[in-house]
Amino acid sequence: MMKYAERMNTMADFANVTRLAYDATGNAEIINFALGCPADETLPVEAAGEILADIFGKDKRGLEALKYNNPRGILQLRKIAAEIMLPKRGVMDADPANILITTGGLETLNFVCQLFINKGDVVLIESPTFMQAIQIFKMFEAECIPVECDEHGMIIEDLKAKYEQYHAKMVYVIPSFQNPSGTTTSLERRKAIAEFGSEHDIVILEDDPYVELRQRNENLPSIKSFDKTGNVIFADSFSKCVAPGLRVGYVYADAETIYRIYDAKTATNSHTSVIPQMIVAEYFARGLYEEHIEKAREIYRVKFDAATAALEKYMPEGTKFQRPDGGLFYWVELPENAPDTTEMTKHVSEFGVNYTPGAGFFVNGKGHNCMRLSFGSMSPEVITQGIKQLGEYIKSKM
Amino acid sequence: MMKYAERMNTMADFANVTRLAYDATGNAEIINFALGCPADETLPVEAAGEILADIFGKDKRGLEALKYNNPRGILQLRKIAAEIMLPKRGVMDADPANILITTGGLETLNFVCQLFINKGDVVLIESPTFMQAIQIFKMFEAECIPVECDEHGMIIEDLKAKYEQYHAKMVYVIPSFQNPSGTTTSLERRKAIAEFGSEHDIVILEDDPYVELRQRNENLPSIKSFDKTGNVIFADSFSKCVAPGLRVGYVYADAETIYRIYDAKTATNSHTSVIPQMIVAEYFARGLYEEHIEKAREIYRVKFDAATAALEKYMPEGTKFQRPDGGLFYWVELPENAPDTTEMTKHVSEFGVNYTPGAGFFVNGKGHNCMRLSFGSMSPEVITQGIKQLGEYIKSKM
Repeated sequence: MMKYAERMNTMADFANVTRLAYDATGNAEIINFALGCPADETLPVEAAGEILADIFGKDKRGLEALKYNNPRGILQLRKIAAEIMLPKRGVMDADPANILITTGGLETLNFVCQLFINKGDVVLIESPTFMQAIQIFKMFEAECIPVECDEHGMIIEDLKAKYEQYHAKMVYVIPSFQNPSGTTTSLERRKAIAEFGSEHDIVILEDDPYVELRQRNENLPSIKSFDKTGNVIFADSFSKCVAPGLRVGYVYADAETIYRIYDAKTATNSHTSVIPQMIVAEYFARGLYEEHIEKAREIYRVKFDAATAALEKYMPEGTKFQRPDGGLFYWVELPENAPDTTEMTKHVSEFGVNYTPGAGFFVNGKGHNCMRLSFGSMSPEVITQGIKQLGEYIKSKM
Repeated sequence: MMKYAERMNTMADFANVTRLAYDATGNAEIINFALGCPADETLPVEAAGEILADIFGKDKRGLEALKYNNPRGILQLRKIAAEIMLPKRGVMDADPANILITTGGLETLNFVCQLFINKGDVVLIESPTFMQAIQIFKMFEAECIPVECDEHGMIIEDLKAKYEQYHAKMVYVIPSFQNPSGTTTSLERRKAIAEFGSEHDIVILEDDPYVELRQRNENLPSIKSFDKTGNVIFADSFSKCVAPGLRVGYVYADAETIYRIYDAKTATNSHTSVIPQMIVAEYFARGLYEEHIEKAREIYRVKFDAATAALEKYMPEGTKFQRPDGGLFYWVELPENAPDTTEMTKHVSEFGVNYTPGAGFFVNGKGHNCMRLSFGSMSPEVITQGIKQLGEYIKSKM
């Protein structure tokens, strides 16, 4: 047996969870609440077809679509990020030169680690946080230290205390409808996190892929919008708001950071595939996006209404959950005498529902009474049925 | 200033060369021999347009094209790799389960490093070798040790000696029309490298993206085809033989390695963009590939004829170059009294020709009298003119 690198030891724990989620895909017998899929009915199939017909037809951009392109991404899409996406997040003066198009949102997390993380460096994370982000930090052999959170996001006093204690190199935050908790970081905390980054000169990695799926309340300015020193790196994605199969996102940061990310990009995959970039850019350029996203928000609102009602009706007494303001996920904490949610995944076939067990979102052994449910890809009826099956099974084991 | 990770120190050297190559792109005044671009006239613009029209039209695969997909890649394309691409390389029994679709060929190099390379591990490389590969190995903080090469590839005695001396973890080989030297590893050496991998249980990373662009002689079986122990990992790409802007490649390895690469893939970018995968798969499925690649080979043959004649005519006496059997690159060694090729890139505007200076393909300070010229993207007339300008400038400085 060839000897694996040390990082592979820690990655293996997470792999199982990911596999379970993917393996359940395509099994029609299982209602799969495990994947963070947008709703099929929101995906712009018709528009993408028309855009592609024009790119290869009247627009005569077919050759451009098949050739090597700039590692930064196509200018058309970087301008859209600067002029449409970032202003919604309170960043009014972004220069397209400070934007690089990525192959989905996760790629930014990889690049930021390439730039800043040495083996053993400490990353401060929300607790719980996005499982795949933990997996990436482990792949880069960082140590993840959880910061206490409440319904307004990271508790700043604990952030400061953990920073002092662990000499952290980076802070990772998902400010809108956090994955998995659903929490939105408050305005005051956003300002405080930006100031904290500047004051201690450390990297704040702000990962904000869900904000466009807001169902209620108003958008808050991003942490990046309060950054005066270039310490905040802003990661966004078109996966949730346009289409995930395209694998297109972007990163916005100060010029020096983007300059370095450019180097990492050329050593990773040269540039993001051109056709997917063009589809996203044209979707905005044709003015199709705003109506689309408003429609998507309404679709998710209906799904979450169904989920909320079903959770209230079918989950055992003492179950805690709070409807998030948007996004794709519901975070559910079961009562103490409920079965271990990791163990329970072994019996998925008995109750016909897959979900993401909570433990993978923690690095400190917590979460065995928690689960993340994603409702993007099912109808309200299937959501209700799935939660019924799940709730009844849990109750039967208590 | 936020503190960069240590790996960024070594990456900076290479970044300049990459930037120069890209920055010259789109400058019509400069004849750019620096990028490894396939010929525009070989890119399947019309076919891609038709395929996309069908995917979003009569085939009704538009929804599938926009949704999340399997981290392994679409089965249709994995089957094509198993049934069409790998048999050409002497691998007759590949299981699509042991193939994972990558976002271009470079991604495989990244994954193999994620799996096997700890900081300080030694990778044995051909000397010279692909600059971007060196950049990737440096990004993973490996130490690159060059193995002596001749016109048949790595010299096996030196490979063994370097392995013993440095306790190497991995060997990186480009067996067909090596980038940049143009050398093809002989049959005997291919067998020997596979046996060497098995005997010492180390990773042989075989990177073979150019083999389809053979202009003369017969294909040799891949190193992987002689591997009985799963030590060889085979990286292929559709960038040179179909279209680079799609960013699609694949990796073929034993089941355990692919299982681990799957984990790295989910932590990198979830899966390769679906539409580009579908375009490549349909291109083969419709039987368009073989005629296409035969036509491409003829196009490159004509370009290399022009290049060979121009190099003989215009380069200073004592210049060494050998026409490769295929691929996109010509490796040129200038006589000792010629200007330093790295220095010369500062004066590109004086003679109007960009090229890749040789030093970036070495890790031991060699190559300052060398240059890599890529002829994919120009007409024979432009190739001749560019070499004339280059040769005359060099002579004027001697």
